[in-house]
Parts: sequence; C-alpha cells; structure tokens
Amino acid sequence: MSRTRVHNFSISLDGFATGEPQSAEAPFGHAGQRLHTWMMATRFWDPSGSDGVDHAFAQRHSDGIGAEIMGAHKFGPPGWQDDPDWTGWWGENPPFHTPVFVLTHRPRSSIELDGGTTFHFLDASPDHALAVAREAAGDLDVRIGGGPSMLRDFLAADLIDHLHLVVVPIVLGRGVRLWDGLEGIESGFEVESVSSPSGVTHLTFTRVRS
Amino acid sequence: MSRTRVHNFSISLDGFATGEPQSAEAPFGHAGQRLHTWMMATRFWDPSGSDGVDHAFAQRHSDGIGAEIMGAHKFGPPGWQDDPDWTGWWGENPPFHTPVFVLTHRPRSSIELDGGTTFHFLDASPDHALAVAREAAGDLDVRIGGGPSMLRDFLAADLIDHLHLVVVPIVLGRGVRLWDGLEGIESGFEVESVSSPSGVTHLTFTRVRS
Repeated sequence: MSRTRVHNFSISLDGFATGEPQSAEAPFGHAGQRLHTWMMATRFWDPSGSDGVDHAFAQRHSDGIGAEIMGAHKFGPPGWQDDPDWTGWWGENPPFHTPVFVLTHRPRSSIELDGGTTFHFLDASPDHALAVAREAAGDLDVRIGGGPSMLRDFLAADLIDHLHLVVVPIVLGRGVRLWDGLEGIESGFEVESVSSPSGVTHLTFTRVRS
Repeated sequence: MSRTRVHNFSISLDGFATGEPQSAEAPFGHAGQRLHTWMMATRFWDPSGSDGVDHAFAQRHSDGIGAEIMGAHKFGPPGWQDDPDWTGWWGENPPFHTPVFVLTHRPRSSIELDGGTTFHFLDASPDHALAVAREAAGDLDVRIGGGPSMLRDFLAADLIDHLHLVVVPIVLGRGVRLWDGLEGIESGFEVESVSSPSGVTHLTFTRVRS
C-alpha cells in the first residue's frame, strides 16, 4: 500500500518551519539556513559530510518515493505566479527526480526539467491532490513536501502516514508555525524521539494501522 | 557564585507549559497530568519508579537549592488571593523545604509549613525578587519555579543560568506558551538535547560565562 511520507521537515523549538519575511533572496526569511544546517552537514547533502543518525534520517528523503506534493510557498517566493520564467529554486536538475505536484490557485503548464523532475500545477484539495499523485507514483510512496501551511492541511485531513520532524534548538520567534490547529494530532501515531550529537532531535510519527 | 536554575519544566511539542482553563480541579487545564507523566514515573516521585535518564534529571530539582521563586499562577488557581485559607497545592509538607517567594501583586503574610517550606509573598520585579531570594539562599542556588509567564520574564531579563526543559511529544494546541517573545534566547547558552526511552527529550540551556 502506497504511503504518504514527510521527511527532513525542520522546525525551531517554538515550532516555526520558516522565518519571515520570505523572499527570492531569503526563502526562509530571517531563519536563513539555520533550520537546515544539520542536513547540509550530512553525506546526503555533501559527499564529505557526516554519516551517522542525521544522515540515516536525511537520506530516506528519496527512498521509495514516486511523486511529491508541495505547497505554493515551497515552489517559489511570494508572487512567483506572476513570473512566467520561474521554474523553482532548484535550477536545471532539481533534487526530486519524480513528478512533483505544486498546489496553487493559479495553475500553469507543466515544466519538465532534467533528472526526471516534472512540475505539475494543481488547484486541488489535499485529498484530490493525493489521488492524482498516487496515480503518478504507481506502487511507490508519495512525499508531502511542505511548507508548513500545506503540511498542516494534510495532517488535519488525516492524510499522513509517516512524519519525520527535526527539532532544531533555536527560538525563531516569528514565521509560520507547524502546529497551529493540530491539538491532539499525536493520537493515532507511534511517536519516537532521538537526539543527535549535532544537537537536533529527530521525531517520527508513524501511523498506527488498526 | 549562586546560580539561578530551572528544573523539570515540561512543555508540549507546540511549546505550551500548561493547558487551559486552569482551576482548582485542573491545575494544568486540559493538559491534565500529561506534561508530567514522565516525572511521576521516576524514583524522584515514586520509590518504585524508573532510575535512568529521566530520574537523573528529575532529582536535580532540590540539589543545592536554597530558595525558590514562583509565579502567582503556580501557587494557586485563579482567585487564590481572595481565599485567606489557601496555602498552596502541596498540603502540610510541601516538596520545597526552603523559603519560597511567591510573586503576586497582592502580597499577604508569610506561611510557615512543615519540612522547612515557608511561603513569602512579594510584589516585585524579577531582579528585585532574585536579590531577595539570593539573600535567603545564602551560598546555595535559587530555583526559578515557573509557571511559564514568570519564567519568560526571567529569561527576557537574562536572569537564568541553567534551564532544564522537558519536551513531551504531545500537541496541546492551547494554554500558556513558554517561548513567546524570546526570539534568539539560545544565544549565550550551551544547549544540549537528549531523548529518553520514555519518549520525552531533555534540553539543557547552560549560561556561557565569558
């Protein structure tokens, strides 16, 4: 059974998944790269990086994934819909290598890039988007890519099977929170926590099948 | 040099240190005992409890402490100032065994109970309260007891030397947050994280002395 999975989703101690304001120069606002330093220090990101618990989690990102769904805020800075040449942050060869479905109220034509990544644009509810992505993924899993607003929607709609969060020990103070409106979301999941020598704590929420 | 320390301060994943509404029947509101289950399962609380990392942290609560400062919301439910017979939640022999300074805008006479605990009531700023508590503690340390609002005030005033937090993997959704207004508070501290088999993660913030 194809599952929906979230990987390497990093939040601050106070629950922010991005700072503010977001722009073309600062995709995570005042957070800069601080939420993802842990990941950029692993072999997953850098061939000379670390090879311990942080890498073990990070490299699961692409393992058995057949499609991704991402929110409009992940695909580009505010206003990207007005720029017909915008093709995402990731250049000619994005690190997805599957179909990627971008949720936006202003869909455009699909964009095929190198390495197997094709961006499709959908104005759709979470469950409809998931049906489309599952079809594209075949027997493989669907990654829910974030950002925080769309992940909240998928969690609230009970559409997530596996959630890997990384709590970074900084207090961002402002930005976009993950947890708002998700009281009690832990019920129905097995939750594990493991801290890393790098200082971050990995949390996994795995759906309990009844 | 006497230090100011915080121990066993438990928060949810979304940063709430208490639920709502708080009352005489439900000191932590809808959170119930969920933020402190980890502690009640240790030898610190229960002689037949666990004796591992959770206990190692929990029992530091009283180690070398000569006085506590607590907020009005920790001492009693809303309106306790109108009840002349209210002597705290803890019965005849409270677990403090030192002078305890309760911050309130409506001070009353001191209350001496068994086991060395005396409650004093102060209408004072954090730094003034700390000066008074330090005097009472002699060479020993001062524990900052919480709740979250008064702890925020002490953190914002840069008066904390050691902060032990326990992140419990539940999403409370509502209550009183610890982190509000504390952007960047981690700078100036050494931060460590260690997860426990019980599922909680212990965080320590230790002031870096320059």
